[in-house]
Amino acid sequence: MREFLENINSADFPQILDNVDDEQKILIYRLLTKEKAAEVFVELEHDEQEKLINCLTDIEIRNVMNELYMDDAVDLIEEMPSNVVKRILTNTKPSNRKIINELLQYPEETAGTLMTIEFIDFKENMTVAQAFNRIKQKGLKKETVYQCYVLTVDRKLLGVIDIKDLLIADRDELVKDIMDTNVVKVYTLEDQEEVTKLFDKYDCVAIPVVDKEDRLVGIITIDDAIDVIQEETMEDFEKMAAITPAKDSYLKTSVFVHAKNRIVWLLVLMISAMITGGIIENFESAISSLPLLVSFIPMLMGTGGNSGSQSSTLIIRGLATDEITTKDVFKIMWKEFRVALVVGISLALINSIRIVLQYHDLKIAFTVSATLLATVILSKQLGCLLPIGAKKLNLDPAIMASPLLTTIVDAVSVFLFFTISTAVFHL
Amino acid sequence: MREFLENINSADFPQILDNVDDEQKILIYRLLTKEKAAEVFVELEHDEQEKLINCLTDIEIRNVMNELYMDDAVDLIEEMPSNVVKRILTNTKPSNRKIINELLQYPEETAGTLMTIEFIDFKENMTVAQAFNRIKQKGLKKETVYQCYVLTVDRKLLGVIDIKDLLIADRDELVKDIMDTNVVKVYTLEDQEEVTKLFDKYDCVAIPVVDKEDRLVGIITIDDAIDVIQEETMEDFEKMAAITPAKDSYLKTSVFVHAKNRIVWLLVLMISAMITGGIIENFESAISSLPLLVSFIPMLMGTGGNSGSQSSTLIIRGLATDEITTKDVFKIMWKEFRVALVVGISLALINSIRIVLQYHDLKIAFTVSATLLATVILSKQLGCLLPIGAKKLNLDPAIMASPLLTTIVDAVSVFLFFTISTAVFHL
Repeated sequence: MREFLENINSADFPQILDNVDDEQKILIYRLLTKEKAAEVFVELEHDEQEKLINCLTDIEIRNVMNELYMDDAVDLIEEMPSNVVKRILTNTKPSNRKIINELLQYPEETAGTLMTIEFIDFKENMTVAQAFNRIKQKGLKKETVYQCYVLTVDRKLLGVIDIKDLLIADRDELVKDIMDTNVVKVYTLEDQEEVTKLFDKYDCVAIPVVDKEDRLVGIITIDDAIDVIQEETMEDFEKMAAITPAKDSYLKTSVFVHAKNRIVWLLVLMISAMITGGIIENFESAISSLPLLVSFIPMLMGTGGNSGSQSSTLIIRGLATDEITTKDVFKIMWKEFRVALVVGISLALINSIRIVLQYHDLKIAFTVSATLLATVILSKQLGCLLPIGAKKLNLDPAIMASPLLTTIVDAVSVFLFFTISTAVFHL
Repeated sequence: MREFLENINSADFPQILDNVDDEQKILIYRLLTKEKAAEVFVELEHDEQEKLINCLTDIEIRNVMNELYMDDAVDLIEEMPSNVVKRILTNTKPSNRKIINELLQYPEETAGTLMTIEFIDFKENMTVAQAFNRIKQKGLKKETVYQCYVLTVDRKLLGVIDIKDLLIADRDELVKDIMDTNVVKVYTLEDQEEVTKLFDKYDCVAIPVVDKEDRLVGIITIDDAIDVIQEETMEDFEKMAAITPAKDSYLKTSVFVHAKNRIVWLLVLMISAMITGGIIENFESAISSLPLLVSFIPMLMGTGGNSGSQSSTLIIRGLATDEITTKDVFKIMWKEFRVALVVGISLALINSIRIVLQYHDLKIAFTVSATLLATVILSKQLGCLLPIGAKKLNLDPAIMASPLLTTIVDAVSVFLFFTISTAVFHL
């Protein structure tokens, strides 16, 4: 049984454990070797981890904590309630406890909180043969072995050696002669999103983290970088849909938290939409004399909102991936203007034809189509200006997405429509 | 100068070359060593690659092609116009040409098109020492060396060896005794999105690709997987904003292509919005007698659209990341119903208070608030049902995002509003 469990990939365990009851879970978990137990533990969701810790003995917790990577240990402590944290820390080696406390000091979402401190370091005067010995002696952990780091005596980062270069080097060569001194590195306080961009740009498997004095303090591995990419993307999706980002997955988040995350923006947008209502109220007499006008409002507001969202989505993503910078603002406005002309004129033409066919009224056709064209142009300009403006003001451009933009465009299009209508029909 | 260029990271070259004119570009490019030239070439955008090829001599092209990884060569050929492709292929070694042609046969977006064929394979009876020799003799390429593969004589995949295990093994151990037989692998025709999920789940640096007979044909490396993740995410953002996904970045895409990518959905949504217009037309007499009603339409449509988009965004992302499956549909509907109740009642209350304060009219307050609550509940139900339904029908759930959903919710909310109004006010 133990051998069978040993052969299952740790990442598959959460699914397997989901299908058995709590007692069996503990039973299975206790059958695992120390190393496997720690690996499986990391893969579990936070609530499962908490349940498990509450069932384990102190000795078992100690075993898990000794096997965990430091970055995973820090993650765990950040997520657990304080009574569990206390139990975890009392069962952690004092040396590790000190390291965990240091790692906990880094501000959230920085390189410092993302890094692991398990890496292999060489002194510059080591030979390749000595380097091999050091690797064997330090023990190999999965996360660290593809790159080794060459340090000065005061632990300043001199260069990096990829395992492949070590493998093909002669055994009496010096590591300083084969190391790469052109190192892609980050400082502990670097924003985690910027770190992931470096992984993407330079195709690294790990990036070393240095402190202000250029001393190596940790490394960030690519699997953690991918997790951050996924998290940041999900956050952007949520912000762009007017949701306060949630910590847990959809199904794990409670109804109350879901409601709390959604109501703030809905309320802001509802109150903003009342402005559009106010504009309409001002034109009540126009509506009374020509109620048909009202039937064009959904089409105008909808098309305005959609064309604006198209632009803002492209610009927000472009800014997030550094494909666009705020300096491109005029280039983008000019491009969006021309796109809006092509799209707006086409849509306005189709609309005019439909109105003339249905109502045989050129004046209405003109009013609606002119508003439509103006709305498309304006909403596309706003769709690029608002996210770029937010970026300039150091706000997150993602909040200038569809929901907020649509609300603004609604007000503008309704105002334009009734202004043009009253002029054309002398209402 | 050559040494200076050699020390610059290849990923930084595109930016550097952007700042010099075309003649200087060629000059700089010609100063690079063969290996560096190929590395830099891969980093360039497709239009820059085309320009460059047109300036290079046949011999220079041959040098680049000999250095390129096969997956990069295939990418290049897929992107270049036919005259350039012809020149590239005539300057490619016949053996490589054959491989490229085979790789080109795999359907787009499958594991087959993503894989590279450069990997290190061992026979099962090799010792660790022999394995080291094979690595040295095969030459080390950056993409391939962290994992090696153990094959039978007919090239079936037996197991995988991580370099770290090779490093700490005794030199006379057999590779088959240290290999991991529990291999995460994919078939050539597997969808690329599914492949990226495996990387995320199992934290691999490479995944082997096998054909139907279980023979190893290539490997997919993590850097290519990250590129696919980024691409697929961008595609989802575009689809969810009613844009046909573009091939190039925002700034590289022409005005005409931008317009083409946006107009289809705008047109579909504009025509759908006319249905809402038609509903309003049916209630023209109600509007004439109580034009104030119209001023609540933007708030009702906006709130309905926003609450629906919140739900659909969460469900679409949940489905994309496998956090949610179509089997969860009833659990989700029940959760969304309760969230809608909390959110809807709060918003309706605030609305009622505002209307009573402003218009001193309880009937209007009731009509608007009842519609608001019903709209929030309905739009949240639609927001989870439509994406899940699309998934069930093997459509992309992303098309059921904000734009389409909002258009449907608009029609529903307007219909509800006027139906309730006519009943309450006997219009």
